Amino acid sequence: MIYLDNSATSFPKPKEVINAINQSFIKYGANPGRSGHSFSIKTAIKIAEIRQEICDFIGAESPENVIFTSGCTEALNLAILGSCQKGKHIICTSNEHNSVLRPLFELNSRGLIDVSVATSTQNDKIRINDIAKHINEKTYLICCNHISNVDGMEADIDAIGKLCFEKGILFLVDAAQSIGHKNINMFKQRIDLLAFSPHKGLYAPQGIGILAYSSKVKLMPIKFGGTGTESINVEQPKIAPECFESGTLATPNIIGMGAGLNFVIQNFTKINEKFEDLTTLLNYELSKIKNVKVYTHPDNANGILSFNIGDIPSNEVAEILDNKYGIMVRSGLHCAPLKHKDLNTLQQGTVRISMSYYTTYSEITKLIKAVKEISAKFYRK
Amino acid sequence: MIYLDNSATSFPKPKEVINAINQSFIKYGANPGRSGHSFSIKTAIKIAEIRQEICDFIGAESPENVIFTSGCTEALNLAILGSCQKGKHIICTSNEHNSVLRPLFELNSRGLIDVSVATSTQNDKIRINDIAKHINEKTYLICCNHISNVDGMEADIDAIGKLCFEKGILFLVDAAQSIGHKNINMFKQRIDLLAFSPHKGLYAPQGIGILAYSSKVKLMPIKFGGTGTESINVEQPKIAPECFESGTLATPNIIGMGAGLNFVIQNFTKINEKFEDLTTLLNYELSKIKNVKVYTHPDNANGILSFNIGDIPSNEVAEILDNKYGIMVRSGLHCAPLKHKDLNTLQQGTVRISMSYYTTYSEITKLIKAVKEISAKFYRK
Repeated sequence: MIYLDNSATSFPKPKEVINAINQSFIKYGANPGRSGHSFSIKTAIKIAEIRQEICDFIGAESPENVIFTSGCTEALNLAILGSCQKGKHIICTSNEHNSVLRPLFELNSRGLIDVSVATSTQNDKIRINDIAKHINEKTYLICCNHISNVDGMEADIDAIGKLCFEKGILFLVDAAQSIGHKNINMFKQRIDLLAFSPHKGLYAPQGIGILAYSSKVKLMPIKFGGTGTESINVEQPKIAPECFESGTLATPNIIGMGAGLNFVIQNFTKINEKFEDLTTLLNYELSKIKNVKVYTHPDNANGILSFNIGDIPSNEVAEILDNKYGIMVRSGLHCAPLKHKDLNTLQQGTVRISMSYYTTYSEITKLIKAVKEISAKFYRK
Repeated sequence: MIYLDNSATSFPKPKEVINAINQSFIKYGANPGRSGHSFSIKTAIKIAEIRQEICDFIGAESPENVIFTSGCTEALNLAILGSCQKGKHIICTSNEHNSVLRPLFELNSRGLIDVSVATSTQNDKIRINDIAKHINEKTYLICCNHISNVDGMEADIDAIGKLCFEKGILFLVDAAQSIGHKNINMFKQRIDLLAFSPHKGLYAPQGIGILAYSSKVKLMPIKFGGTGTESINVEQPKIAPECFESGTLATPNIIGMGAGLNFVIQNFTKINEKFEDLTTLLNYELSKIKNVKVYTHPDNANGILSFNIGDIPSNEVAEILDNKYGIMVRSGLHCAPLKHKDLNTLQQGTVRISMSYYTTYSEITKLIKAVKEISAKFYRK
């Protein structure tokens, strides 16, 4: 099997991650922060270490500003719903995933906020000018996808962060597809809210997400319950990060994420270079095939690439790749409807390739060969 | 180490659970419901099988009525916030955990609902009359803890369910401490909303919860995002269970839960009998020790027992049990403040023992011996 669906979830997971999860069931089996016994404390210390490592990796203000969630979707919901300013205005981009769009349009449909959608005018990047023109006096938040999960289009988050800082607007970055292979530093890049899904670029198990926030954000919990703090109080405590993490933490997932993070730190340059090389090769070779349309701009060599073969439904191409070649890719719409509108692929969808550390040159050349054959078969006349 | 903190999280996890999680990383490594390739479909089928097994185990209406959440807290938040009827009235019991109380008092503080708290009048069980007297014409929901996490007090959910059914009131049961050793059947017991934490009584890893609901409940999502359905739509879809499960499912946790469920089904009677026997023994023996106050009524032999030794702070007793005897128990307040008020232990807290399948007679006798020694040492005069 050739697995090229790593933007859905990375596969395989590194042995270091699986080993750490197995270890967690033995060494860190208690509930951290819930009991005072030594086994619980040992587990809590391990969790705190990983929180610190995540904090350092993303340049967050402090470990208290790093919140463990169930996934990137909960992180984005907490960021958007938890910072909502009634009667005001948010800007997002047409690259956003439904995990951003749906919370935004939920708030919009309740009459709480207005939303503007910024689109890349030059079809290669989301730039500062694409965003700036939508700013008005009510704008308090800009939600910006870092790398599109459809075609790998990047946003110039350095410049957009600077703009937000100057204008006093909060800056939310959805790093679901960039964490682990793009440099991200909340402090340097003026990011106020950073959400990502460790099971993708950090090779963690599914079931853990991160939201980090700066002290500029007045964040309110969206989930209420036991926090291991102020047990006597029937009202939600205010101490972070616990007040945002009601309920038992997913220790095995957090420990798996910790191991994944170390794996990524050790291999960061290698992953980044691999994505750049293999995406560039893939883009170049697919673009040469007659009837193949590549949607990914060559400048966005980020491990994600979308294409179609003529007018063949993307699902049909994916099915042939799976059945005949054993190549797993995603097709159809990728939970980012505004992006598909930009690309004019709402009907056809796209065939999406997404890579990981484990993707090889050989796998990419096999894919290229398969696409050539499929195209030739359908359009031999 | 003697681990008697299973109400916080069960430890150890059965080898079947750990093996299943390891298998999941190899056999079910794709994202279920997100892609059309065979690896994703295989994963989705496995997830669907487990959803059906959970449905059968709890007597839910259909697998579509079984929602995977990140934990019991999210399940209870979804149940309470997602079924909120503005201007109306909810009854809960003084046995509730903060995971019920805090969402309730959040809604209350926003002026959305009124809350009444029912207390056991006979100090042994929560009975129908304790609840019934609080019902008024605005009551639409009764939230009932099945077994108290503090002292194992049970609620007569059969009778309360019947009452709710007759009055047309929705019935929410928090089965966090009863699942896996008490018979629960939503259909027979007229339960409309059932929430539980599989990492306790189903020996699952942390990071997975269940909310099941009947078609009587008009449930709204509290989290918005990608569902793998209606990808084109920026509004949250209405198809269940996906509309409540935005974001990538925690496959390893779900598969671990499936293995835990099978483990419990095979050992159900054994676990139930063990809890009854060992709790009865423990209650009887501790009650005989001078200066020891047992808070658990002998009729509630549910694997959970709270006590104190004289006026020694519960944390101090727990610390001695840990340091001198290697016995891990929880002390202080157990995230159920109204219960501690009932027990008059808001200051002292309680020392709580909680059992699992793996708890042995020998461990319980060692605990009894330790408590005798601690009591004798403190009160030798």
